[in-house]
Amino acid sequence: MATHKLLLLPGDGIGPEVMHEVEKIVEWFRKRGVGFETETDLVGGTAYDAHGAAISEQAMERAQDADAVLFGAVGGPKWDGVPYAVRPEAGLLRLRKDLGLFANLRPAICYPALADASSLKREVVEGLDIMIVRELTGGVYFGEPKEIVTLEDGSQRAVDTQLYTTKEVERITRVAFDLAKKRRNKVSSAEKSNVMKTGVFWRQVVTRIHKAEFSDVELEHVLADNCAMQLVRNPKQFDVIVTDNLFGDILSDIAAMLTGSLGMLPSASLGAEDPKTGSRKALYEPVHGSAPDIAGKGLANPIAMIGSFGMALRYSFGLLEEADRLDDAIARVLASGTRTKDIAGPGMNAVGTKELGDAIIKEL
Amino acid sequence: MATHKLLLLPGDGIGPEVMHEVEKIVEWFRKRGVGFETETDLVGGTAYDAHGAAISEQAMERAQDADAVLFGAVGGPKWDGVPYAVRPEAGLLRLRKDLGLFANLRPAICYPALADASSLKREVVEGLDIMIVRELTGGVYFGEPKEIVTLEDGSQRAVDTQLYTTKEVERITRVAFDLAKKRRNKVSSAEKSNVMKTGVFWRQVVTRIHKAEFSDVELEHVLADNCAMQLVRNPKQFDVIVTDNLFGDILSDIAAMLTGSLGMLPSASLGAEDPKTGSRKALYEPVHGSAPDIAGKGLANPIAMIGSFGMALRYSFGLLEEADRLDDAIARVLASGTRTKDIAGPGMNAVGTKELGDAIIKEL
Ligand SMILES: CC(C)[C@H](C(=O)O)[C@@H](O)C(=O)O
Ligand SMILES: CC(C)[C@H](C(=O)O)[C@@H](O)C(=O)O
Repeated sequence: MATHKLLLLPGDGIGPEVMHEVEKIVEWFRKRGVGFETETDLVGGTAYDAHGAAISEQAMERAQDADAVLFGAVGGPKWDGVPYAVRPEAGLLRLRKDLGLFANLRPAICYPALADASSLKREVVEGLDIMIVRELTGGVYFGEPKEIVTLEDGSQRAVDTQLYTTKEVERITRVAFDLAKKRRNKVSSAEKSNVMKTGVFWRQVVTRIHKAEFSDVELEHVLADNCAMQLVRNPKQFDVIVTDNLFGDILSDIAAMLTGSLGMLPSASLGAEDPKTGSRKALYEPVHGSAPDIAGKGLANPIAMIGSFGMALRYSFGLLEEADRLDDAIARVLASGTRTKDIAGPGMNAVGTKELGDAIIKEL
Repeated sequence: MATHKLLLLPGDGIGPEVMHEVEKIVEWFRKRGVGFETETDLVGGTAYDAHGAAISEQAMERAQDADAVLFGAVGGPKWDGVPYAVRPEAGLLRLRKDLGLFANLRPAICYPALADASSLKREVVEGLDIMIVRELTGGVYFGEPKEIVTLEDGSQRAVDTQLYTTKEVERITRVAFDLAKKRRNKVSSAEKSNVMKTGVFWRQVVTRIHKAEFSDVELEHVLADNCAMQLVRNPKQFDVIVTDNLFGDILSDIAAMLTGSLGMLPSASLGAEDPKTGSRKALYEPVHGSAPDIAGKGLANPIAMIGSFGMALRYSFGLLEEADRLDDAIARVLASGTRTKDIAGPGMNAVGTKELGDAIIKEL
């Protein structure tokens, strides 16, 4: 039986706590004969404290070598003052860039049992199931020049560069259409083509790929500001939303917040398929952040992290049965009313991170 | 008595219909001795149809010459295919840039009578009153290079440039703090300083101006993606949000949509004060767009446009009494249940654009 190499990068804040629950589940599968090999390393603020960098070269090598990386969360007030180049986020950005993880899949699902936790009306979000496909290695995140310059008169100017190439837009477009075909067959492409040249370009490439390769999938173009509005007004109109790195950052956060289940949402960041082996680099992380306010208290909801491991089972290892089994266990635990504080309804008894993890293992 | 020069630019879609109601109100004030001089010109798609440009030189001269510009809306499917340089939005962007309208004030107010029209739960939005202060003449909207280039191998790359200078960030920061002092004394500054150098820079300048000039106002820094989330989760935590051109575009649209009153929200775009005359260039426009789907049907809600005129009375002409009078008239009409379709509750009788305008005049 194949051995799957997992690199665990718990990171900062609640990262280690929620990752610990995944380790228990990995162990459970291992005992039942699924071959996992795990390594653990530092990333983010804790890596900075140890090595003076947001991720060490050793951790990067391990990530390159792994079949999948599980990532917790990074950042916290402790590191607010560290230099830009070594801030906690730099570790995550380097992983994305160096592993070539251009496709970020962020499902936003509203669990019926949790619909009331949303700030939106139940009827607006109940049954919501959309997938944001965010380009993750291009755009304003990585374009050069990216600098702050001091001018002769002592004043300054800062610049970032939003940059996209044909190849970059093509490949993320294909990911979106491929996904839509397995879902409700609709792609909404979001940009600001009324203001940005990268938006005009994005729209052109998406339109061309649609026509040439996916004309049986419905395509609509929507301006990013309007997309944000429509997500708030009537999110169920969407199926797959494909968009650039920066708009994807914002739109996927909005979509996640709509569901009322932020602590529940996993995400996958995938690289290109190796034409020889068919495998692809991948990193899986919860949509939520490091939540410094509740870190270390054993209160964090581990489901997004566990669900991220579930995505790894499915997308990286092809262990579909195991993935289904895990998803079912999560669903049954939720249905039974065992919940952490963030998703416990009024009058429900909230459990801690560990108890929820244990309950899921019991259901497995 | 001074004469106030108004340039009306109704634009496309529902623009002309809602502007017509403003004209009736201008006339009402004129009859009562308030000196208004109005001119009307084309902008957007209709200007393109007439002149091949989204705004003519003559209209630009008139705008430069006016004490205030009232702007309807631009764009529509009819002009989806026109060249980038003359697309309808180019007229608006040129007005903003050439008139130096760097400060865009977008109030998001949830009218109690309309709270149920929001997709958010009543308790989340009822009483909401936030002000988005958006930088409007800088950032990725205008930075160069901004182009699509074809490379030797036939592939292309597109680029936009996000650029901010010390002066640009300083002046918008001051506008935000000045406003906060007249409100609930809190400013939230939104950027992506964890990813963008312009974000790092933005945060530095805001922090410095705060310390030097407004240390009695509360300041918080919030990442733009988190700001979008927080707007959905609990918008009432905000008072004034100050942000750049692109984030402001998205965040202000989210804020507007939260209120359930998109057809009700005015906005002001202001230039720098002339040190000699104390006057400033200004453009007032509804937050909603050209709504091509209902254009020409007499259904559009004119309140955002009329409210924009109200903002002109207040900010450009110092006619505070008249502005209050207009606001009161709008409030009374709303309270009486006279509403256009977009804001009519279930079982309410919806009226058209004209009837609503007439009702407001009657209340004046
Ligand atoms: C941590 C930060 C750099 C990151 C981003 O902006 O991409 C985060 O917000 C995300 O969405 O994954
Ligand atoms: C019409 C368009 C150019 C404009 C913008 O992006 O600024 C609009 O969305 C707005 O917010 O005023």
